[in-house]
Amino acid sequence: MQIRKQNDFDELVLDSLFATDGPSGTVDDVLAWVRHRNQEVIVRINRKPFSELKGWGFDATSGNLGHESGRFFSIDAIRVFKDDGKCQTWTQPIINQPEIGILGIVTKVIDGVLCFLLQAKIEPGNVNNVQLSPTLQATRSNYSQVHKGKKPRYLELFFNAKRSQIVLDQLQSEQGGRFLRKRNRNIILNLDEEVPSHEDFQWLTLGQIKALMAYDNVVNMDTRTVISGLPYHSFLSGLSTYDFNGYMRQHDVSQRGRDLFASEIAQAGRHSIESILFWLSELKSKYELVVDRIPLRDIQDWQIRENEIVHNDRRFFRVIGVEAVIESREVKSWCQPLLQPMQEGLCAFIVKGINGVYHFLIQAKIESGNFDVVEMAPTVQCITGGYKERLDYNVHYLDYLLSGDFKSVWLDSKQSEEGGRFYREQNRYLVVEASDDFSEDLPQNYIWMTLGQVKEFLQFNNFLNIQARSLIAALDYQ
Amino acid sequence: MQIRKQNDFDELVLDSLFATDGPSGTVDDVLAWVRHRNQEVIVRINRKPFSELKGWGFDATSGNLGHESGRFFSIDAIRVFKDDGKCQTWTQPIINQPEIGILGIVTKVIDGVLCFLLQAKIEPGNVNNVQLSPTLQATRSNYSQVHKGKKPRYLELFFNAKRSQIVLDQLQSEQGGRFLRKRNRNIILNLDEEVPSHEDFQWLTLGQIKALMAYDNVVNMDTRTVISGLPYHSFLSGLSTYDFNGYMRQHDVSQRGRDLFASEIAQAGRHSIESILFWLSELKSKYELVVDRIPLRDIQDWQIRENEIVHNDRRFFRVIGVEAVIESREVKSWCQPLLQPMQEGLCAFIVKGINGVYHFLIQAKIESGNFDVVEMAPTVQCITGGYKERLDYNVHYLDYLLSGDFKSVWLDSKQSEEGGRFYREQNRYLVVEASDDFSEDLPQNYIWMTLGQVKEFLQFNNFLNIQARSLIAALDYQ
Repeated sequence: MQIRKQNDFDELVLDSLFATDGPSGTVDDVLAWVRHRNQEVIVRINRKPFSELKGWGFDATSGNLGHESGRFFSIDAIRVFKDDGKCQTWTQPIINQPEIGILGIVTKVIDGVLCFLLQAKIEPGNVNNVQLSPTLQATRSNYSQVHKGKKPRYLELFFNAKRSQIVLDQLQSEQGGRFLRKRNRNIILNLDEEVPSHEDFQWLTLGQIKALMAYDNVVNMDTRTVISGLPYHSFLSGLSTYDFNGYMRQHDVSQRGRDLFASEIAQAGRHSIESILFWLSELKSKYELVVDRIPLRDIQDWQIRENEIVHNDRRFFRVIGVEAVIESREVKSWCQPLLQPMQEGLCAFIVKGINGVYHFLIQAKIESGNFDVVEMAPTVQCITGGYKERLDYNVHYLDYLLSGDFKSVWLDSKQSEEGGRFYREQNRYLVVEASDDFSEDLPQNYIWMTLGQVKEFLQFNNFLNIQARSLIAALDYQ
Repeated sequence: MQIRKQNDFDELVLDSLFATDGPSGTVDDVLAWVRHRNQEVIVRINRKPFSELKGWGFDATSGNLGHESGRFFSIDAIRVFKDDGKCQTWTQPIINQPEIGILGIVTKVIDGVLCFLLQAKIEPGNVNNVQLSPTLQATRSNYSQVHKGKKPRYLELFFNAKRSQIVLDQLQSEQGGRFLRKRNRNIILNLDEEVPSHEDFQWLTLGQIKALMAYDNVVNMDTRTVISGLPYHSFLSGLSTYDFNGYMRQHDVSQRGRDLFASEIAQAGRHSIESILFWLSELKSKYELVVDRIPLRDIQDWQIRENEIVHNDRRFFRVIGVEAVIESREVKSWCQPLLQPMQEGLCAFIVKGINGVYHFLIQAKIESGNFDVVEMAPTVQCITGGYKERLDYNVHYLDYLLSGDFKSVWLDSKQSEEGGRFYREQNRYLVVEASDDFSEDLPQNYIWMTLGQVKEFLQFNNFLNIQARSLIAALDYQ
């Protein structure tokens, strides 16, 4: 195994994790700023029939819903054959956005603390208009046409980044059930140089970002996925037990926080990395997922109506057309399709101490847009169903989660999915510690992993799905 | 990082690596056995026009060439858009075999040495009829229908394997330029129980298998990919320097062998695993690969003729139809398409000592059937071109390899590709140690990696392509 040469940066990340105040004040100050930005802006979302969606239309041959420029994204369709024990086949609309998006955060040490430059960004689908997004959200076209026309703010910092400034660079998946094999490049830069300020942007500590995830819908999905990959491992695992304890006392870390850090640097878990890889190989071989793109006009069990594309049973999600009118310093308006979920979802990790080390209960889950059949998902992920009504659901551990019978609740908040594609989608994100009598024996597509193992898989890209990464990002160590 | 709990098995693997004699005698004895099997069998391969290929036909709609049962594989076509600096687009035939194949080797300790059960197997495309293949080559259908009809020998050992018997379980890719995202499950079992013998099978030590790879076309591609993943790491890295040196002396390992082992357990390389992952993320984001399946009848620049599917310039490969007649103890005959390469290829690693540690020069290569845009390939991989004539080639390091100006040559033999799909394809496999003045500065899509790093990526599946794995499998430590 390779020793990371990043001790120094890891230590900065950890110190930032413990900093609750930063250049933008306290967590409350940041929250007030976001709320203020929210009040300042008026967002009107007007439903439009597809025929009035300026710039968008159904392709004459395929019936796919796309933009006349061929850019942005399109609503296509897929036929799915899934065999995860029971064979199922269906067709569904899917967002096709083949370009790899770039989600980038600039960091910089300010007054001795590593800070992350986040934007108060308006997205048409956000329940509350403005959320904290990465420094940069760009597409490959933005990126490669850096010298032409209007370009996103701070793009040139990423475009001109030296290799030594890149402290994270991962390719990670988006929602497998909604996007066709979409991936984003998650980049974090660490800069020494002066970074020009802008009123839409603020410098936050990692501790502040974590604290804000305890609130509903403040930190957007893109920020969550980027920070989920941050390492602390190499610094902590380089400490002796004595120094580790000293470090924890110095930062006033709770017993739970210590145990969580200990799970991140544990030398042994219930299973080795190798066994976990074997488990995945077995499932990927055993399960089958065949996804073929089909013309949207050939979709079955869905209706393409004047103002929505909807399942016959009005389940899962529907595609709607909207005109977004944003009034802040200037007035902007444009039209686009959005996906609207038909219910609120639930994403939850169950955690349990096993042999004195916290283990996360990971689910291997097939989703139709997955890059590689199965990704590691939260213990429970009910996005498409209506988990509260338990609509024809037979989901492992859902009853347990709804029972409320835990040792403790580590996280329980609502988080939004990408507001540029999804209309007012918020899901409940939950992390609970199971009581001691929770069975350690699991169904075949579930496994226990330490936090260190989760992070190692995260580093190798495309193993953990976006919901799992969101939950990991929200873990709080205080 | 996770400590593997496999020390004991790793030590067995290493001991087997040093064993040149085994239950089947010496390397010469095994070679004589394979040659004898080769003489015993008569293989006649009769070219047939596609119209006379029993059981096979062109689909009325797509024109794809498939079997009437819908099983085995089919010859489909793809349209490729590739942007790795220069944009290229083309169509080509491709083998579509969506099932994950199973390549399994049974191992067992015999007289204190770990032995691998290999089969002398006839494949219609082999240049020399019989080569040493894994204990089992099966498809998912074979596997799931284990209780029905005729089944491959030893299948039930894999089907009934307990988790504790599985010592390797990886999903790895096949030729990206020929197969559409095909993968195999590579499994090794370690059994205590009696394994019934059969005249087509022999027990070989790992040292013998390695020694046989110095000969042309003895060890088949499937065996090479399975053994490429074998670990020795956890045993060796657990030794003190004193014990390491003692172990090497005890087994009479050459200085080069020691240095190679040292490269496998090196704590630091020229780049960290994390930097290598960043490098890959960057290339995967920068490069673009769009592959769409198209009907074979829509293929361009290729001719679908009575008895071949061939490129207008007669380059790359052609698809032919054959009737295979195998006469050994019984006479079997069947028809199938095969791919015939239009030239011999070259796959080569350049290795260099950097800061006292051997590093392999890895190429990030786009191939049309790749699972994830780019895979790690040998320094030079010229399969499709005719490297000897340097047909419109502009390949980094090809001139260097053809110059013969090395410090030493570690491997130079011809190895066959899968004889069940490819007609008499053999490529030259070469590993050379570069002289000290070989530049350590590389073009952007090349990187230096220690052997330990190569093996770590191998463990995480789908990072190293099959040609790279073949070369790693052939590394000899004596």
